Amino acid sequence: MYTSARIIYFNMSKRKQVYIYALILLGLVGVPVAVFAEEAAEGGHGGFGMTFLWIAVILIAAKLSSLVEKFGQPSVLGELVMGVILGNLVLIGIDLFEPIKHDSIIEFLAELGVVILLFQIGLESNIKEMKKVGVNAFLVAMIGVVLPFVLGTYIVGPWLLPGLDSTAYLFLGASLTATSVGITARVFQELKKLQIREAQIVLGAAVIDDVLGLIILAVVSAIATGGAVTAGVIGVITAKAILFLVGAIVLGQLAAPFLSKYLAKIQAGVGMKFTLAIAFALLFAWGASEIGLAAIVGAFAAGLVLDPVHFRYFKDAKVVRDVKKALKDADAQDKVVSEVSKAIEEHAHRHIEDLIEPVSFFLVPIFFVFTGMAVNLETMFDPKILGVALAITVVAVFGKVLAGVAAGKVNKVLVGFGMVPRGEVGLIFAAIGKGLGVVSDEVFSIIVIMVILTTLMTPPILVALLKRQK
Amino acid sequence: MYTSARIIYFNMSKRKQVYIYALILLGLVGVPVAVFAEEAAEGGHGGFGMTFLWIAVILIAAKLSSLVEKFGQPSVLGELVMGVILGNLVLIGIDLFEPIKHDSIIEFLAELGVVILLFQIGLESNIKEMKKVGVNAFLVAMIGVVLPFVLGTYIVGPWLLPGLDSTAYLFLGASLTATSVGITARVFQELKKLQIREAQIVLGAAVIDDVLGLIILAVVSAIATGGAVTAGVIGVITAKAILFLVGAIVLGQLAAPFLSKYLAKIQAGVGMKFTLAIAFALLFAWGASEIGLAAIVGAFAAGLVLDPVHFRYFKDAKVVRDVKKALKDADAQDKVVSEVSKAIEEHAHRHIEDLIEPVSFFLVPIFFVFTGMAVNLETMFDPKILGVALAITVVAVFGKVLAGVAAGKVNKVLVGFGMVPRGEVGLIFAAIGKGLGVVSDEVFSIIVIMVILTTLMTPPILVALLKRQK
Repeated sequence: MYTSARIIYFNMSKRKQVYIYALILLGLVGVPVAVFAEEAAEGGHGGFGMTFLWIAVILIAAKLSSLVEKFGQPSVLGELVMGVILGNLVLIGIDLFEPIKHDSIIEFLAELGVVILLFQIGLESNIKEMKKVGVNAFLVAMIGVVLPFVLGTYIVGPWLLPGLDSTAYLFLGASLTATSVGITARVFQELKKLQIREAQIVLGAAVIDDVLGLIILAVVSAIATGGAVTAGVIGVITAKAILFLVGAIVLGQLAAPFLSKYLAKIQAGVGMKFTLAIAFALLFAWGASEIGLAAIVGAFAAGLVLDPVHFRYFKDAKVVRDVKKALKDADAQDKVVSEVSKAIEEHAHRHIEDLIEPVSFFLVPIFFVFTGMAVNLETMFDPKILGVALAITVVAVFGKVLAGVAAGKVNKVLVGFGMVPRGEVGLIFAAIGKGLGVVSDEVFSIIVIMVILTTLMTPPILVALLKRQK
Repeated sequence: MYTSARIIYFNMSKRKQVYIYALILLGLVGVPVAVFAEEAAEGGHGGFGMTFLWIAVILIAAKLSSLVEKFGQPSVLGELVMGVILGNLVLIGIDLFEPIKHDSIIEFLAELGVVILLFQIGLESNIKEMKKVGVNAFLVAMIGVVLPFVLGTYIVGPWLLPGLDSTAYLFLGASLTATSVGITARVFQELKKLQIREAQIVLGAAVIDDVLGLIILAVVSAIATGGAVTAGVIGVITAKAILFLVGAIVLGQLAAPFLSKYLAKIQAGVGMKFTLAIAFALLFAWGASEIGLAAIVGAFAAGLVLDPVHFRYFKDAKVVRDVKKALKDADAQDKVVSEVSKAIEEHAHRHIEDLIEPVSFFLVPIFFVFTGMAVNLETMFDPKILGVALAITVVAVFGKVLAGVAAGKVNKVLVGFGMVPRGEVGLIFAAIGKGLGVVSDEVFSIIVIMVILTTLMTPPILVALLKRQK
């Protein structure tokens, strides 16, 4: 039976194979979940058993969603959409996956995933290239923050939602400012475009964006709570953030090669280097979050600092040794070995990234599926709110795309759209505003929809722009 | 300054370099922790920042502890001892690291770490070899459970701790039964001895041990709560556990090659296979925990089922392609390529393990450091309790080492000592007994000390035995 099933399968068209494959994966998700649905609903199984199940479900769902790659879309889109589906099955009465939303361990793994992603992207980015685009990145960030803020707070907000308190407009405007760089970074990474100038500008601008977001958050919170906003307070916040970033990068650059050469000298194993690299990233992530910046900004800085070159000692040696052994009886051994080591040299450059990759395979999809799950489609059911939200989304997109003009001699539209996704930072503004009683449920929903739309629209648009560029 | 420091450094003796290296790592741990100590004590920082710090601290501490390798000890011992140190600094007034003990996310990551470890070990184990040693493993497990149980419950318990309730002796005996296989498995793995017959017997016996432990737990809990223990109840528990293990392995063996061939056909990427492998392991871990078995037993079964061969499609192809490209101008290209691919073939066999390795580098040390941190040295301060505990520990060791005689024509002492570590299962018995009011604080401390001693003594003993064998 096994053999005949195999023959049947391999005679099928590719399309059918894809369907079967999808069915198998669905089965892998569905059957265990369904079988134990009742127990899951009861909750209360000791230990972390259920969390293991949820991680497995998310990973399988993420891989199932990677079918979007067949349609030329990056898998991050598939993961987001799959998350939206899993998170909204409750609307049609399926509440199986609801516990995932409230599992703080899954939430942590998602956060760890995006920290690892930005660390990885930092490793793949080049600090010298970043410096070259620094001025452009700064301008893109500034315009991309000021423009949507002014439009949201003073023009479109009061126009579309008349009669609200001025603080409400302030929060609406603030929520339009902060770019969520994870999505854009992942798209560039998947398409192997992290090295292009546009990607570097977006990454740099996103870091500056986060600093600006921190300042805005302090200001609007102070205004909302009736506190005074002195130049001194703003100065301190800004100084701390800049000091952290500059300090991290300068000190890190001094310390990293030193440390890694020591490690090479005392013949530290690959596990040692890799583990210390991860620890380094997490220390930076923690440092950033202590300052009030996003953890991912710290992780990205850590990646920038740890030049992969410092970690490349062994692979060279090991592979060349293996090849030498294999070639014992071959002709022209030395020449061959030198050719092979040259070929391997390139790979060696990527060594630490190679080690991070599996950790990233494991954790990054959790972030994007979890992000998708946080989307509540119900917010879109009210046509009036949806209408205003669409208009606000246009403002959000317009503001960032226009900021792209400051990107210099590159594909400005690509940079602009790279800055479009709003994510957790926008939601943080909305949540704080709601907590302070300044942001109504209506405005909150509008911000949520804007975040959803800017997040989901970006991957396909970036793919299309990159294709056209070619 | 940088250059001269370098010159000074590299002129130092190796011993001094090790010290400096230790100092650097200590600095990496100490400085950020100390700087933010006050804030940490206050707690309540939003997000997961502190958890990032704790993970970094654990990883750096783990790597610092791997200095024990210089003394021929496996790094697992270093991690455990480092954990004991971090966890007991509070005894000298340093309570910096106390929050780690109560961080449920760290606890989860530790559990995930040991699940990944056992999955990895399952992958490296061969199911056919396991079957060959099945009878011996069964006998070792049976004797190793019955002997300590009888000794603890009926002889040494009543003799050393006269006047307790008979149920207390029952829990004491039960806590002596269950082997914690993670430590032994890691030692064998580090010394690349997983393939020896002794290792296979220990792994097989540990799985059977866990099933037996499950039955004992049900029985003693029923007795303690005054419930009836019918043969029917025990039969159901046993049947469920065996059904899960046999079912998982049989079904898994049928499904795994089928699934992975499909994946190869539709050209799934390496990320896909790896992620599905992890998901597979987590599903099995969850399944095991649903049945009441340890999650690690499920993960180990998943590893046994997923024969790495199924995952080996690409690396071959990719590396050979790279080498071919590199050798474009070299002589005797075909011969060289065939030699190289042969050399790579071996590596390809290990492909999925290679991908799991970084995840394991990241998570496994968290388990062992966290395990060490759970050790409360204060329990050892009472000489009377310590005395009894030492005697009980002797019983615990003796029972397992004697069970080694059933291991057949192998190094019986090695098998016996491989079964010695008691871990979380022993503590679970103790905790349940304490919860039921049957186990006094005194007996609880005795069990804890027994667990500590058997855990810490095993790595050096195994290393010594393996060295003598050579």
